[in-house]
Amino acid sequence: MIGPSWLVEDMLRVEGLMLETAGASTNPLVGEAASHLLKAGGKRLRPALVMIASRAGRPGARESDLAAAAIELVHVATLYHDDVIDETDTRRGAPTVHSKWGLEVAVLSGDYLFAQGCLLGATAGGEVSTILSRAIAEVCEGQIVETTALGDARRPPEEYMSTIERKTAALFAAGCELGAATSGASGERRRSLVTYGRRLGLAFQIVDDLLDLVGDPELTGKVPGTDLREGVFTLPVLLAGRREPALLERLDAGERDLDTLLPLVVSGGGIEEATERARTLATGAVEALEGLPDEDWTEALRSIPQGVLAQL
Amino acid sequence: MIGPSWLVEDMLRVEGLMLETAGASTNPLVGEAASHLLKAGGKRLRPALVMIASRAGRPGARESDLAAAAIELVHVATLYHDDVIDETDTRRGAPTVHSKWGLEVAVLSGDYLFAQGCLLGATAGGEVSTILSRAIAEVCEGQIVETTALGDARRPPEEYMSTIERKTAALFAAGCELGAATSGASGERRRSLVTYGRRLGLAFQIVDDLLDLVGDPELTGKVPGTDLREGVFTLPVLLAGRREPALLERLDAGERDLDTLLPLVVSGGGIEEATERARTLATGAVEALEGLPDEDWTEALRSIPQGVLAQL
Repeated sequence: MIGPSWLVEDMLRVEGLMLETAGASTNPLVGEAASHLLKAGGKRLRPALVMIASRAGRPGARESDLAAAAIELVHVATLYHDDVIDETDTRRGAPTVHSKWGLEVAVLSGDYLFAQGCLLGATAGGEVSTILSRAIAEVCEGQIVETTALGDARRPPEEYMSTIERKTAALFAAGCELGAATSGASGERRRSLVTYGRRLGLAFQIVDDLLDLVGDPELTGKVPGTDLREGVFTLPVLLAGRREPALLERLDAGERDLDTLLPLVVSGGGIEEATERARTLATGAVEALEGLPDEDWTEALRSIPQGVLAQL
Repeated sequence: MIGPSWLVEDMLRVEGLMLETAGASTNPLVGEAASHLLKAGGKRLRPALVMIASRAGRPGARESDLAAAAIELVHVATLYHDDVIDETDTRRGAPTVHSKWGLEVAVLSGDYLFAQGCLLGATAGGEVSTILSRAIAEVCEGQIVETTALGDARRPPEEYMSTIERKTAALFAAGCELGAATSGASGERRRSLVTYGRRLGLAFQIVDDLLDLVGDPELTGKVPGTDLREGVFTLPVLLAGRREPALLERLDAGERDLDTLLPLVVSGGGIEEATERARTLATGAVEALEGLPDEDWTEALRSIPQGVLAQL
């Protein structure tokens, strides 16, 4: 992520704190397994939101660094468990913990990262632990609700929206809230940032789901059509299904092949309409910042939704 | 658990708080899955330690109730994940979440319980979140270290001890510390209680491992010899292996049958010596209480190690 020079410095400190915390165990396997995915890199979007949002108050508090490192550790923990559930072999170009050390180590080192993330949150004090654990609970809820929708091509798009609000947007909103809370920003600024984070998170997930259908695997690093194969019908599919009965017929018949289904998702307007929704949400995220001063940190926040859309 | 009447009342409040927190989701599946094992009952040993230890300071603080409920939710979360790892079908006489709803819901509802436990801890404030998350990290570390010892019949018994200190005793010690911390007990009392908890936890795990070899399945509700079959060689086996070469030969040859191996564990003195260690630790736990006043709560604490040993 390119941004103001203070952000580069902030993120270097947070990176150090994350690696130190994930690698803190005296046992080499625990340290290696818990640091594995962090060392493979990543966009660090959630901790960046904490650090940028902390400019809404008095920046530079140690609590903001701790909260930023904590939220990424927790996010990585959820990825460890996702990879166990989906039996994913590679992520961020590296073998997953699950494929390298097996299910047991993947489940337990995910739990370890949760605990270490919560420990950082507790060290930060104030509201950090509350904001963080509430967001984790929401993420888990969203993920569990998603399992109940597997294979349901007639799920109302609004149900999809409320699921991704918990599964994904809750942690984006929490990142913004943590920045505001640890810097002592005003209630008004905090509310604007939380709204921004929530809308950004929704746009991010819709784009992520679109990329699974139409993304370039060279750029995404993911195998296209994974959601369809797993019976996870995302917004473009749900929207298209309402206009293209042939799509529903094929899905009901158990068809899961991307090449066969994608033309029907396109002809049903699913790609177009989902893209439009992501764009509206990204615009809405920027609009949520309107009451905030025009400074380099608000500029940095405005650039993130643009970057998310630019992947399409 | 039978004890002073205040303990019965305390535990009823804590039980209500746990069920309310585990069942807080608006989604029925999340609520049902997260409450499932709690509703099957259990000894509630860890929250009882919190409530009894809170008598070392000013009892009756809401923080103690919150911490007690939090530690049991976290403990239950680790059981959800244990059942995923071991593919256990029943626990406490009920089907496991894993067998009832599958791996995905078991992993995620375990995570949800972790988060809800941490949220209760954060609500309690003070040191609760720190004590709790540090203990969870220790438990996970101990469990990961244990995986590296699978199938190693020559593991030094001291390594076994240091593993169960993290895997099991850390949460017992944390329970005692939470009771002391939330009631504002003196530093001296707190240290005594933590030592008590750690020794009790060690004794508890040794007894649990002995019961896997010599317990009555009617009473334990578990299938005997499970550890052996999974290649987990516990204290009695490790101790016997040092005196009975025939045991090591059989284990090296891949023998995992309890009926074949138990006579060798017995002839090697493993059952006797491990029982002796558990007894010494239980006595040591009671000794740790010596500086504390002779009241009904210290009496309740003294009775717990006796109860643990009485299972043998």
